[in-house]
Amino acid sequence: MITVPVDKLTEIGIEIFTKQGASLERATFLVETLVEANLTGHDSHGVYYYVRYSDRIKDGYIKVDAEPEIIKETPGTAYIDGHWTFGQMTAKKLVEVAVDKAKENMVAAVGAFNCNHIGRIGYYTNWAAKQGIISTFYVNVGHPIVSVHNGLGKTFGTNPYSASVPTGGDIPFLVDYATSVVAAGKLSVAKAKGVKIPKHWTRDQYGRVNDDPDILSKGGWLLPFGEYKGYGLQMVSELLGAALTGSRLGPQGVSVPPSPNGIFMMAVNPEAFVGLDEFVKTTDGLLEQVKNWPALGGERVMVPGEPEKETKEKRMREGIELPETTWTEINELCEKIGVDIDAILK
Amino acid sequence: MITVPVDKLTEIGIEIFTKQGASLERATFLVETLVEANLTGHDSHGVYYYVRYSDRIKDGYIKVDAEPEIIKETPGTAYIDGHWTFGQMTAKKLVEVAVDKAKENMVAAVGAFNCNHIGRIGYYTNWAAKQGIISTFYVNVGHPIVSVHNGLGKTFGTNPYSASVPTGGDIPFLVDYATSVVAAGKLSVAKAKGVKIPKHWTRDQYGRVNDDPDILSKGGWLLPFGEYKGYGLQMVSELLGAALTGSRLGPQGVSVPPSPNGIFMMAVNPEAFVGLDEFVKTTDGLLEQVKNWPALGGERVMVPGEPEKETKEKRMREGIELPETTWTEINELCEKIGVDIDAILK
Repeated sequence: MITVPVDKLTEIGIEIFTKQGASLERATFLVETLVEANLTGHDSHGVYYYVRYSDRIKDGYIKVDAEPEIIKETPGTAYIDGHWTFGQMTAKKLVEVAVDKAKENMVAAVGAFNCNHIGRIGYYTNWAAKQGIISTFYVNVGHPIVSVHNGLGKTFGTNPYSASVPTGGDIPFLVDYATSVVAAGKLSVAKAKGVKIPKHWTRDQYGRVNDDPDILSKGGWLLPFGEYKGYGLQMVSELLGAALTGSRLGPQGVSVPPSPNGIFMMAVNPEAFVGLDEFVKTTDGLLEQVKNWPALGGERVMVPGEPEKETKEKRMREGIELPETTWTEINELCEKIGVDIDAILK
Repeated sequence: MITVPVDKLTEIGIEIFTKQGASLERATFLVETLVEANLTGHDSHGVYYYVRYSDRIKDGYIKVDAEPEIIKETPGTAYIDGHWTFGQMTAKKLVEVAVDKAKENMVAAVGAFNCNHIGRIGYYTNWAAKQGIISTFYVNVGHPIVSVHNGLGKTFGTNPYSASVPTGGDIPFLVDYATSVVAAGKLSVAKAKGVKIPKHWTRDQYGRVNDDPDILSKGGWLLPFGEYKGYGLQMVSELLGAALTGSRLGPQGVSVPPSPNGIFMMAVNPEAFVGLDEFVKTTDGLLEQVKNWPALGGERVMVPGEPEKETKEKRMREGIELPETTWTEINELCEKIGVDIDAILK
């Protein structure tokens, strides 16, 4: 592993994307979302994508300069054509519009299509929460890797779900996860460490139980989390993320553009109910109570969002650890496009 | 088990509640929701409640004649005081208002407090779907019986989640489940059959793994489904259902009124996005594809809502099977309040 300070990793990313035609403002936002993923411990959604997104720019799948556009709008809704720019720019537009509308109209629903990979969705729900808005976010990934419950083979993407609410104190509330038992990145981590994976994560190509961290490349697939219950949520993400927005469905199974996202956010203003102050007061009290709840032996009760907060504090101090392969890839990319990584690291 | 025809069970219920002061219209709706729960296989939310609700009327917790009231309203939102009438009447008001607003405003969020037990929440999301409206529904149950992830003891209620979308063909789409591994009713069923329960459903009072179907009455508790992921959804139901609506939080742990529900629905009109026709067409195609997906050996892939549909068709034909204890209780109640059950069954 290589440890890189947060500011250096950010500077490298900004240079990478401005070199490829992104405006400074756009590159800065994009890189912030990726570095934030590493900071919060979600390395599978982090600067690993510097190279992937650069490939997609080169191949014409990411349109660096395109502007997301609202093509249908009411006081409470907006329907956005992302025009295949960086997914992060489309998601940023989506959450900004959703929050503005929730502030004015008390409730909003915003969806987008022609949208590239948006990164970690918790970034957006958490941003809304900081503006005093409650949100839920459903995303489909148009790249099948997860089976349906009792199904054989890959049907849907990891179709994540996120929800966040405003809090006042030190404890955040952020739910943000793939509807598979784990994200594919967890298998890569196990593979890099040379360890087996738990048997309830995947099936092999014949549907057999297995513990091979490399099983996805051998025709295996991830399972939905929590049996038929996680499967239900997986399908809600598919229907709201893709069917409602007109994005590519998981089972269509075509490979380009790579991993598009159909995205859908519902946003609610607490002022339409108990009011923001009262909501935050109740929520803070509840989260404090849960955080301090007695735990099973050897365990600890954590509030959703708390592990991310702790990891971020640690990594802000100590820097971000990257696998050798990721760091090598980034260096090769920089050399190819003319970013002087040594000058930045000096 | 006793098998009772659907129409007779309905008639008995209507007599039970009109005898206790409910209008015919109100009793008819209430009983329809309870019988529908049995029909769809969710016996834990069915006519078992004829007796429970009657007790709550007697004890003054259910106000038979009260009218749910909108106390705050915008074009897209409504905040409802249920005034402790039947929870079903409050939920009916909530879903009707949400659907009306979603039709006009394209998106709606409606929440309610002072709300008794509303029964099976899939009834309401499914009703919205039949009106062409997509909805998600979060409910808190102000009666702790489920632990938090890694926690010791009962923290939250079974805090269900539901989502439904319009479909055009024969296949419904309805997600509707407790955020615990199973509803408490499944333990009662196992107990009645004299069988052990799977070890991942509950913990005993000391937090130990066990397989005793009677463990809840011995100080044990249910676990959230899907480890930390189901736990996240459990807390979203608590925050939206209770903190946002001002309903009783799970950890408050007081016992009266029994099992109040804080309820919150978000409703979306597909016309604001791809349009209803296009949405239904895509959804039907996807559901057909999933329904016919290859299955693991000995299994079958079912669409969420399909098991309920099949059970309903069977029970409409064959009648509803009730445990002896439930049937005896209903008979005792009828005798006490002067409902001539034999005349109805003739």
